[in-house]
Amino acid sequence: MLQFDDVRAAAARLAGVAHRTPVVRSRTLDELLGMQVLLKCENLQRMGAFKFRGGYNAVNVLSDAERARGVVAFSSGNHAQAVALAARLHRCAATIVMPHDAPPLKLAATGGYGAEVVLYDRYTEDRDAIAARLSEQRGSVLIPPFDHLPVMAGQGTTALELIEQTEADGPLDALIVCTGGGGLLSGCAVAAKALQPAIKVYGAEPARGNDVQQSLRSGRIVKLDEVPRTICDGQQTQATGPQPFEVIRELVTDILDVPDPVVVEAMRFLFDRMKLVVEPSGACALAALMQHRERFAGQRVGVTLSGGNIGIDRFVALVTGVERVD
Amino acid sequence: MLQFDDVRAAAARLAGVAHRTPVVRSRTLDELLGMQVLLKCENLQRMGAFKFRGGYNAVNVLSDAERARGVVAFSSGNHAQAVALAARLHRCAATIVMPHDAPPLKLAATGGYGAEVVLYDRYTEDRDAIAARLSEQRGSVLIPPFDHLPVMAGQGTTALELIEQTEADGPLDALIVCTGGGGLLSGCAVAAKALQPAIKVYGAEPARGNDVQQSLRSGRIVKLDEVPRTICDGQQTQATGPQPFEVIRELVTDILDVPDPVVVEAMRFLFDRMKLVVEPSGACALAALMQHRERFAGQRVGVTLSGGNIGIDRFVALVTGVERVD
Repeated sequence: MLQFDDVRAAAARLAGVAHRTPVVRSRTLDELLGMQVLLKCENLQRMGAFKFRGGYNAVNVLSDAERARGVVAFSSGNHAQAVALAARLHRCAATIVMPHDAPPLKLAATGGYGAEVVLYDRYTEDRDAIAARLSEQRGSVLIPPFDHLPVMAGQGTTALELIEQTEADGPLDALIVCTGGGGLLSGCAVAAKALQPAIKVYGAEPARGNDVQQSLRSGRIVKLDEVPRTICDGQQTQATGPQPFEVIRELVTDILDVPDPVVVEAMRFLFDRMKLVVEPSGACALAALMQHRERFAGQRVGVTLSGGNIGIDRFVALVTGVERVD
Repeated sequence: MLQFDDVRAAAARLAGVAHRTPVVRSRTLDELLGMQVLLKCENLQRMGAFKFRGGYNAVNVLSDAERARGVVAFSSGNHAQAVALAARLHRCAATIVMPHDAPPLKLAATGGYGAEVVLYDRYTEDRDAIAARLSEQRGSVLIPPFDHLPVMAGQGTTALELIEQTEADGPLDALIVCTGGGGLLSGCAVAAKALQPAIKVYGAEPARGNDVQQSLRSGRIVKLDEVPRTICDGQQTQATGPQPFEVIRELVTDILDVPDPVVVEAMRFLFDRMKLVVEPSGACALAALMQHRERFAGQRVGVTLSGGNIGIDRFVALVTGVERVD
């Protein structure tokens, strides 16, 4: 199982490379929710999301010989950019398998970091098989998006920092972390529980893609039959993996589900009152806190804002209600 | 003239009350401009702008007897909200004179802080006279928006913090601060020059409202004939005041002028790449750096992002080009 020492080692590797993102507060938010809320701004992280932490750590732990053969990753989103950027920083080749209908912004960003982008059709082709074949053909190391200890350790540095940045004013009662595949949640749970054993750690998931909630409550990994329909595109995974789940089952108190309209409400609050741009999955943990506020009344609660990679047109469509969300 | 001790005293009063806002960086921005840029995020300040610092300090320095008679301020923008909030925090009455066509959001926010809002017609009535009369009738202290030492001292804590937060990695070569009436610029110049005497301090002004530039270059306060037509609504003052100008003339190297379209470009960059919501005047200093980048090549430059109070509709209209800016 992932150990706190792995997270600490990742933090040492990331020092001076990843941003030590700020923790921000809003008295308006505190009054609105009746608690103390501490927001860890990973939307201000390099390449706009916490994924940089895990991607960088995973490339960094490879041997020189491994890096010389390049790395392979598959992702439609932030993990692709994270591995591409991490590879560039290590002067190592990267091949990223992406769906041909991925957002043009993300395709361009991934290519912009110097990675070779291999497109596939997500309706007829199997990305795992393509990535595995590329990895085998080229002798490259595959870097999975969440079911991988170095990735989980890197993501866990988010909670390590959050606690270091806030402990002077007292420990946290709870920590809420969004979860898609479970990389961020598992890493953060290990770090938070090691530093503050009394803390309760919660995941946050879109209500229509609540596989981790079902998994935690049933004690075994539940896989959704199809890709969940939610605006939270960073959380459309159908199942978590064995390694994140081992941690989640042991250390996470519960998974909070959130309807998409509450995610939009959180995005709008963050724009209007906190001047922060956050993508849907990035606002999911705050939305979960809004939705389940009575469980946290009077507490001191850490919340991850996990990413900000959304184009302005989509942002506007969501926040102004032009794109209807149900 | 404003002294550094005044700024330090203001910092002590603001400790634990104002946010110690983060300083953020972007490698993309550094590469784009060919320098190190350190952005002080006053858009993340309480009530969304640096103005809280000066407003709070000005109310705090009053005697109990003075505060018991209440305070008066006139402003169409962030200063109104700052004084209203500062008064509420001191449990003191506030009367704010605002134009009847001020943005509804700002009228509502000012009233929401418990202030009495007195409306006037900016085309036929004189707000200075109205505020002076109210102040006299009620025995209340008038808190001017910039030509007032406690306000200037409070605003100067922005640069004091920026330097404290960045000095571990070396001194700044330059500091760029937006200027409307000159309160922020003068306060920041005093703090920056006291802490790092070799620093060069620049103001940033919309090109069509360059009264401070004209004043500095001619050595006397120049008043524009009419309200400048610019999207930078925090910088539509027609002239600076004697007290800020005394500092600016002595300590500021130059005022950089910026065309409005470059301000929009900076706002868009901050949204897309840095996930920050900044109002036009708040982006003016970064826009000035973009516009005059060759003067700062290879340097380490501090920049204020002074505020983020803009409604999403206006933000979108500007950044997507629906509202044409020339």
